Formats: sequence, C-alpha cells, structure tokens
Amino acid sequence: MNNIISVVGKSGSGKTTILEKLIPLLKEKNYKVATIKHDFHKVELDTEGKDTWRHRKAGASGVILLSEERIFLSKDLPSEEDLDKVAAIYLHDADLIITEGFKRKSKPKIEVFRKELGDDLLCTENELLAVVSDDEVKVNVPVFKLEELDRLADLIEEKFLKEREADMFLVVDGKRIPLTEFPKKILISGISGMVKSLKGSEQAKNISIFIRE
Amino acid sequence: MNNIISVVGKSGSGKTTILEKLIPLLKEKNYKVATIKHDFHKVELDTEGKDTWRHRKAGASGVILLSEERIFLSKDLPSEEDLDKVAAIYLHDADLIITEGFKRKSKPKIEVFRKELGDDLLCTENELLAVVSDDEVKVNVPVFKLEELDRLADLIEEKFLKEREADMFLVVDGKRIPLTEFPKKILISGISGMVKSLKGSEQAKNISIFIRE
Repeated sequence: MNNIISVVGKSGSGKTTILEKLIPLLKEKNYKVATIKHDFHKVELDTEGKDTWRHRKAGASGVILLSEERIFLSKDLPSEEDLDKVAAIYLHDADLIITEGFKRKSKPKIEVFRKELGDDLLCTENELLAVVSDDEVKVNVPVFKLEELDRLADLIEEKFLKEREADMFLVVDGKRIPLTEFPKKILISGISGMVKSLKGSEQAKNISIFIRE
Repeated sequence: MNNIISVVGKSGSGKTTILEKLIPLLKEKNYKVATIKHDFHKVELDTEGKDTWRHRKAGASGVILLSEERIFLSKDLPSEEDLDKVAAIYLHDADLIITEGFKRKSKPKIEVFRKELGDDLLCTENELLAVVSDDEVKVNVPVFKLEELDRLADLIEEKFLKEREADMFLVVDGKRIPLTEFPKKILISGISGMVKSLKGSEQAKNISIFIRE
C-alpha cells in the first residue's frame, strides 16, 4: 500500500542525519513523508506514575494522548510487527515511509557507509537502491556523497513516487489478507465505486473503511 | 463505530483512579478497553535530541517507534480532533473506549464527584450515564460508591457492550463521511460480502480496508 524504503547502516554511520536531510528534500517535492524506527527505549507515555501509564497498567490495550493538532498513541500489537500492516493502519496518509534501520526486512535499502566503521557493506547489491558515502565504495548501485542527497531524492521520486498505481490493503480480524492482482482490482473498483456514489466522496483518492460485523 | 464513554470530574476528583478500577472489571468480562486522554504535556518521543524528534523536526508528518509487541506513534492531525475518527482509525479493535476528560464532547459521561471540590456537578443530568461519589448527590441518574464500581461495569456492559449492531466507519481523504442507516447497511453487506469471498476471510468480524486510487 504505502511505499516503504529503509535507511540502514552500522551504528554511528549517520542514519538519522541522512533522514534529516532527505525528508525536507522530499517534502519540497510535495510528498508526505513519515518514519518508522525500532523502539529500543521506553517512551514517556509509559513512564511510571503518568496517567496514561496507569491506564495501561490497569489493562488498557491502547492509550492515546490527544491535542487539537497532535496524537500520541501507545498500543499493544497483536502479533509480530509487519511493516506493511503498521504503515497501512497508522500512516496510511503518507506518500512515502522511510524506516531507520530494519535491515532484516525486505524493503529497498539505502546504506549509509563510512569506511572507518569497517570495509564491508551491511547489504548485498540486490537489496540496495543506493549507497550514501563520502568514501570510495565499490558497488554496482548509485553512490551519493552527503552533499548529493538531492539526487538521491530524485531517484526515490522516480522509482517510488511517480505514476503510482491504485492499491489496496486489507486487514481482517487483525490479520493482513494478501491479495493477488485480479481480486485486488475487483475489490478496488467495486468498493471505490460504492463509496464514490456517496455525497462528498465523488473525488475520493484515499479511502479508509472500518467495519464491525 | 466504537463505543465511547467519558469519565469526567473536577481536577483532583480521582478520574484516573476510577479508570484504574473500571478497566480491569471490564477486562474480566472479556472486553478490550482502550483510553484517550487530553495531551497537556510533551511526550518523550518528541523530546529534543531524540532521533524521532529529529525526524519530526525535519518534517516527517508522523513517526513510529516499533518493537515486536508495542507501537508508539506521534503524528500531526489533519484537523481538529474528532473522537470518533481518532478512535476508529487508531483504536478500531477496542470494544470500548473510555476518555479521561473531554467534558465538552457529547459522549455519555460518568462524573466523579467530591463534595469538598464544590457543591455542583459539572454535567447536566441528560449528559450523565452515572455519577461516582462517596458523598450525597442529588441527581436523577445512578450514583455508585467507589466500592460499587462492579455495578457500574455491569451498567456499561448492559448499555454499550451487549447486542452490538454491525457498524461501519468511513474516512475519505482525511474526512469522516457520515452515513445514514440505509447506505450504511448496503455498504456493510456489499463490502463484507466481497471480503468474505476471499480465502481466509470467511469468518471476518473486524474488517479494515485502505484504498489509494
């Protein structure tokens, strides 16, 4: 559903810095970008003594802190994380999702490389979309220097953001249901057709539907 | 879509404590309970210097911290908060959502009352489902003492959790589309019918669909 790419690299290679430079370049092109990072530390929402912590401790499956312009959510996941499902449910309105890390997931990867951290790349060539490095790297994918990230943004746009096909993502009772092309097409046109017949939805581009039977 | 009720009361009346006692009682009855609270303080996800803070500062519309069993999300809201929409999207799998506060929203309310904080109730009788108080309260709705919250849980179950009708919630391009009974029924049966024809979805109870045209 969403386009997901991963920025990976050894610890200290500068992944967050690359994200900080890449996000504004993609925003300038009018794309909505969201990020996913591995949770290695506890979040304040869950700090002992906070009201939201007390709600969770009492057994709430999820808690939300809500203001007029922001939402914070802390929630149990029903099963092992599935990047696509998490992205579709919680970041369904983003054009592109960049993960920091997640090198074991099968998303196209941009590796940040610094020779001083070791001679070898973390990823194999066929996993890589590109490498970012100021060092010499022998690899058969585009290598961009730190000041060339505008060209990396162009490459990402070309590969993932232009000419996007209609797509659909389906979750049934907490499980993602994989769809092959034909049923997907039928469901998209059937459901979109119904929704577009409703007043105010004629121009629908992003549709989210939640049904409880 | 979701059932939403609000626990309200003056500052210091003990709202969080009531939630702490009520949630386990509802969980015992096998309902999944989630909570929503007003965000008055900044959350650690957004603490200066954190990687996730740097992602947001760079312009990410949303950031997620993900572990195998938990998700933390911090995200911009496209428009003023709408409890129903927020609940449908982010807490769609909960049977009941209890808000702490939100006294201005039109959800059924449970007021926590302590005479020492003032003689008057915050809410009018027609807003109230019940009052929780150890003091004398003159009001035409059920009043439960602190040790009688099991009876409040029974009342909530009776009113909101038994015999739930099929329901549907629709968001198009970030806007909630209100549905009257007839189109809602047609959409539910049409879409559920299509989804249930898919392998692995025959017994679908909760369906979430995300379409990008």
